[in-house]
Amino acid sequence: MDAERTEIGTLGEFGLISEITKGLEVKREETLLGIGDDAALLKMKEGYQTLVSTDLLCEGIHFDLTYSPLKHLGYKAVVVNLSDICAMNGVPTQVVVGLALSNRFSVEAVKELYGGVRLACERYGVDLVGGDTTSSNSGLMLSVTALGQVKPDQVTLRNGATAGDLLVVSGELGGAYMGLQILEREKLVFKEAPGAQPELDGHEELLERQLKPEARTDVVEELAKLELLPTAMIDISDGLASEALHIAAQSGCGVRLYEEKIPMAEKMYDAARDFNLDPTMCALSGGEDYELLFTVPQERFEDIRNHPMFSIVGHLTEDQEDRALITRNGMETELKAQGWDGLSADS
Amino acid sequence: MDAERTEIGTLGEFGLISEITKGLEVKREETLLGIGDDAALLKMKEGYQTLVSTDLLCEGIHFDLTYSPLKHLGYKAVVVNLSDICAMNGVPTQVVVGLALSNRFSVEAVKELYGGVRLACERYGVDLVGGDTTSSNSGLMLSVTALGQVKPDQVTLRNGATAGDLLVVSGELGGAYMGLQILEREKLVFKEAPGAQPELDGHEELLERQLKPEARTDVVEELAKLELLPTAMIDISDGLASEALHIAAQSGCGVRLYEEKIPMAEKMYDAARDFNLDPTMCALSGGEDYELLFTVPQERFEDIRNHPMFSIVGHLTEDQEDRALITRNGMETELKAQGWDGLSADS
Repeated sequence: MDAERTEIGTLGEFGLISEITKGLEVKREETLLGIGDDAALLKMKEGYQTLVSTDLLCEGIHFDLTYSPLKHLGYKAVVVNLSDICAMNGVPTQVVVGLALSNRFSVEAVKELYGGVRLACERYGVDLVGGDTTSSNSGLMLSVTALGQVKPDQVTLRNGATAGDLLVVSGELGGAYMGLQILEREKLVFKEAPGAQPELDGHEELLERQLKPEARTDVVEELAKLELLPTAMIDISDGLASEALHIAAQSGCGVRLYEEKIPMAEKMYDAARDFNLDPTMCALSGGEDYELLFTVPQERFEDIRNHPMFSIVGHLTEDQEDRALITRNGMETELKAQGWDGLSADS
Repeated sequence: MDAERTEIGTLGEFGLISEITKGLEVKREETLLGIGDDAALLKMKEGYQTLVSTDLLCEGIHFDLTYSPLKHLGYKAVVVNLSDICAMNGVPTQVVVGLALSNRFSVEAVKELYGGVRLACERYGVDLVGGDTTSSNSGLMLSVTALGQVKPDQVTLRNGATAGDLLVVSGELGGAYMGLQILEREKLVFKEAPGAQPELDGHEELLERQLKPEARTDVVEELAKLELLPTAMIDISDGLASEALHIAAQSGCGVRLYEEKIPMAEKMYDAARDFNLDPTMCALSGGEDYELLFTVPQERFEDIRNHPMFSIVGHLTEDQEDRALITRNGMETELKAQGWDGLSADS
């Protein structure tokens, strides 16, 4: 697809690094030295603690290059790590990026991918301070480590919730999963009829949820503005059900979740119906939404209930065995962490 | 080779994490929270700055599982990152480890690999504070990010050397490269005669240099004891020649290096001769020794010249075009960064 194709071998490692880092500027005062020496040098802000999170994205497991543009992929690899920093109620500050790729990738492809990495860094005011680019014998692999900062009294762990706390989620759920279903369908169509135009029109929002998710740094800011410190927080990478169960288990509580309260976008709902999927299951177990799920004391009910950013989806209970999903028709079923595998088997 | 083989699928992600982290203790007071939440939480020591370095190791590129034991591999993946922290004159404090592996690896194999990671962490007083373990479609990939700390007035960059500075290296060079040659030879022998016993006896030191290198935290400590702040420092991953040229180029200087001064172990020398390789070339371009190369002002000559840890191998000059290797017989040739590829082509 590239008009130009430069082999990585013609540039060498240092030429490639220079291409990738061209025009890269350090934005944060905490970053004393970025790329170019044996390690980056940072002066973390006084009065703050440091957060560290790392994630790997592997071709064929976490992404499919037949429909993931490289730029989106670079963006997403950064964002999923920033989301982890948000889940601790922190502000992301720096990332380092490791990239392993086979020689089927050109210099232009690497620049495209780093274009996405850099776009995410700009969007979130984060510095790209280091990396490692190397050959691989097969696919593409991206490894990102993010650093962040948080005031000691603002840290939110997973284990601080107590019985009676409200369970709150930001944004809408299930979109990333439905975006993936649409992409997989079009891939199949294309395989069977290689000339076919993909039917992606009207699905842009769902595709974007899958291919170019965002980290909810705005939620962290809003919580600070509301002077609302969650008792526990986690980001939704595996699905609402799984994450809610994590908070409950690590806090030594039970959890009750109400189907009718789960926030879903109309487009997600309609697409799920088109695919003969249960929209609630997509929202509960789809994952990759990178919304924040947190608990707050009941006293803060008024701050949350009409806030456009948040939905109260349930609450925590005393009994650790309590894992309930209350359906729209008032039935009670067991809340299960199905994950993607379970979901795919159902669909 | 394993007596037992447990499929990773039978444990699931969380079961695997629990196996890997069993008995893991946090050692450093800077580590407030290690593995188990969305991110690690650190309280970096006041008065220190933070160092960050990241490296990827890919199967088939950086290691060959036919002769790299998994435990050694985990150890090495950590050490090469700690070495980068040393090269900044810092003390390593924490690591996070990303691991991608295909289903041909068993739970026992993953534990073996993490055994090496944990051994390195113990040996160097570093905390393992996070990670990500995921499937890959093909080989094994390890991604390590190391954090460290350094006092602001103790940081050593690559660009601080001036003309006249002495060029000093720790330890002995070329061993890691010769270790690799021996392993490659035995692999070939084994391929041709699968029953053959490998001839590794007597080569233990060289094999260890390749399979289980060490980071020179002791050199950083010794420099502090001597109150000797290098003007520039780098670790030797690509070879003495390449790293010396980096320091010279980034410091805007030339460099003159003396063949007779290059420290070589007798065993490396003898093995190189056995392989019809030039020992000097192995020491200059072999790489992966993870020794430290640094520059000091001439006034500190007396501190260095009889110190058992160090060898003065040359000095920096005014003329940036100056890149000289002075051979044993007094000839002057151009110092070139050959790297492994060049070396293999010659051998």
